[in-house]
Amino acid sequence: MLERLKKVSSWLADKEVEVAFLTSPDNVFYLSGFLSDPHERLLGVAIFQDSEPFLICPSMEKDSAKSAGWPYEIIGYSDTDNPWAFVQDAISARVASVHTAAIEKEHMNVERFEKLMKMFDRAQFISVEEKLRQLRLKKDESELVKLREACALADYAIEVGVAEIAEGKTEMEVLAAIEFALKKKGVLEMSFSTMVLTGKNAASPHGTPGETKIQKGDLVLFDLGVVVDGYCSDITRTVAYQDINTEQEKIYQTVLKAQLEALKTIRPGVACSEVDLAARNLINSAGYGDYFPHRLGHGLGVSVHEYPSITETNPLILEEGAVFTVEPGIYIPEIAGVRIEDDLVVTNSGIEVLTKYPKELQIIR
Amino acid sequence: MLERLKKVSSWLADKEVEVAFLTSPDNVFYLSGFLSDPHERLLGVAIFQDSEPFLICPSMEKDSAKSAGWPYEIIGYSDTDNPWAFVQDAISARVASVHTAAIEKEHMNVERFEKLMKMFDRAQFISVEEKLRQLRLKKDESELVKLREACALADYAIEVGVAEIAEGKTEMEVLAAIEFALKKKGVLEMSFSTMVLTGKNAASPHGTPGETKIQKGDLVLFDLGVVVDGYCSDITRTVAYQDINTEQEKIYQTVLKAQLEALKTIRPGVACSEVDLAARNLINSAGYGDYFPHRLGHGLGVSVHEYPSITETNPLILEEGAVFTVEPGIYIPEIAGVRIEDDLVVTNSGIEVLTKYPKELQIIR
Repeated sequence: MLERLKKVSSWLADKEVEVAFLTSPDNVFYLSGFLSDPHERLLGVAIFQDSEPFLICPSMEKDSAKSAGWPYEIIGYSDTDNPWAFVQDAISARVASVHTAAIEKEHMNVERFEKLMKMFDRAQFISVEEKLRQLRLKKDESELVKLREACALADYAIEVGVAEIAEGKTEMEVLAAIEFALKKKGVLEMSFSTMVLTGKNAASPHGTPGETKIQKGDLVLFDLGVVVDGYCSDITRTVAYQDINTEQEKIYQTVLKAQLEALKTIRPGVACSEVDLAARNLINSAGYGDYFPHRLGHGLGVSVHEYPSITETNPLILEEGAVFTVEPGIYIPEIAGVRIEDDLVVTNSGIEVLTKYPKELQIIR
Repeated sequence: MLERLKKVSSWLADKEVEVAFLTSPDNVFYLSGFLSDPHERLLGVAIFQDSEPFLICPSMEKDSAKSAGWPYEIIGYSDTDNPWAFVQDAISARVASVHTAAIEKEHMNVERFEKLMKMFDRAQFISVEEKLRQLRLKKDESELVKLREACALADYAIEVGVAEIAEGKTEMEVLAAIEFALKKKGVLEMSFSTMVLTGKNAASPHGTPGETKIQKGDLVLFDLGVVVDGYCSDITRTVAYQDINTEQEKIYQTVLKAQLEALKTIRPGVACSEVDLAARNLINSAGYGDYFPHRLGHGLGVSVHEYPSITETNPLILEEGAVFTVEPGIYIPEIAGVRIEDDLVVTNSGIEVLTKYPKELQIIR
């Protein structure tokens, strides 16, 4: 059985749970290799302690699931079938009775939950999500290959964006040029809506890209990511256009120092909170604490936000293979918005930084 | 009280339901005018029979909700608050006890549902979704203004795409050019992932755009949509590149005839099934019935797929103000894939077609 499925099976045995039924596209992909967004249709993977797992998907997707490498049973259904009856039959064929079932409580909707409760009316339902978050925490080499490629494309996107900056160009024009260049390289999906923000817009924690024009003295902030084979990157860079004033420069250098300080802290055995505080303390000492309103970073992988969460209170101890962002920022309304974000993987002795676009202050002429 | 909220209030009174709590961004937008994607954070609108409604959102979004026109209480919360406690207090302040609550069962996840069940432990929960689907079915003039603009931009996107077609260009290159042109016009969001498919790729019901190059004799299929102020358009056009063979042309003309036939059928009082069958019967008679595997169309509005569903079995009688797509298609592996899709609104005597890009067979030279 695939290594990841085996780990879920042993967890089921430990917890005395008969079946786990996972339905989020991200977790189905992680467990089966099959990447698909079925929208409102049912997609699921069922895992048992000893019996063989199965995957259920629309009939027309069966071949794709097979070629993605799923070696076990695949149950297909058409739009006129009731896929839940198939799920019930397949589970009942594998386990005599279900006392406890594990589901994704943060993903499954109430309508589906009510169907499951009817099907297994004496079962209690627990959440399998915490276990999946743990599993997904440690990236293996095949995952790192994809993440490195996604990060290289994110670097390229910043390069394109910076080259596009010019007097009077709008945020949307620069954004359009970035995504155009990526699409020409075959990128089908961004990790999230690309952000290009300039001047006051970058200084608001809630700017959205629009028709604001780039002007001399602006700080221009790029935040974007690329999906490669199901894995997400996420990078932020901030550059100055033609000029920078003393306060803006002080803010930039503070953010940069905080980012480098946090990166220096990271190695196996260190708590997430220590990493956050390395940056946060430096920003606090510089007097900008009130203007750094978010956590330092977040895990990255199949989802653009996953474990670990790099906050000042997370006691989680980092281990080799964790991939996350480090992205301190300072936002002072009307004055400046600066954020610098890299993606990295924890190695056996420190880190490998995956995003490589330069971070020294650039003043674009 | 806003007209739409009033309608939900009377439904609550009819059904003897004390409160409706809606949490999907689309329905919150429809009811409050506030368009926001809070991701994993709570966003909700609570509506009562007689008491004043309230909206709950992250504190930093309160101002946006207000400026979007929500005139009632807005409860803000920070990341360290428990927003559910605020929901409980606000509901309890308005109704003495909750026997029945209406929620979005297809949207709310199990984790949230369990919180609600604990908060209102003697309540039963029903679905409010059917009511919202009904309300959203009839578009008012302010909605039509946005839909017309979204459709005009979709027309423009097709125009750009067709102009980009050239020997050896890849699907992704054409796609990139389309989205580049739209972003330069300030479009922030597409209704769904843009499709540009050529040749065999268009003939498979599951093609995704990639590195396939456009060649003489290809049919090139565009399927795309644009979001304007929260409202979605959706258009499909198929054009031939340099040449078309007899079978491909027959398929094209069959799809076009079927589409025009369906459009002619539509007016208030006609059932959705009649519209679907007008196109389907024509395609069946031409011998292509097995190659038209999907419904004729779907409603369109705040969501890119909403009521009404234009299927051969839907008895729903169309009324003025319904907006939907008509999109017959024929896909024969290795031979041709053709789909022609327009968006329209039902008027008092027939229809207004909202997408206007020409549909006669075009052979691009």
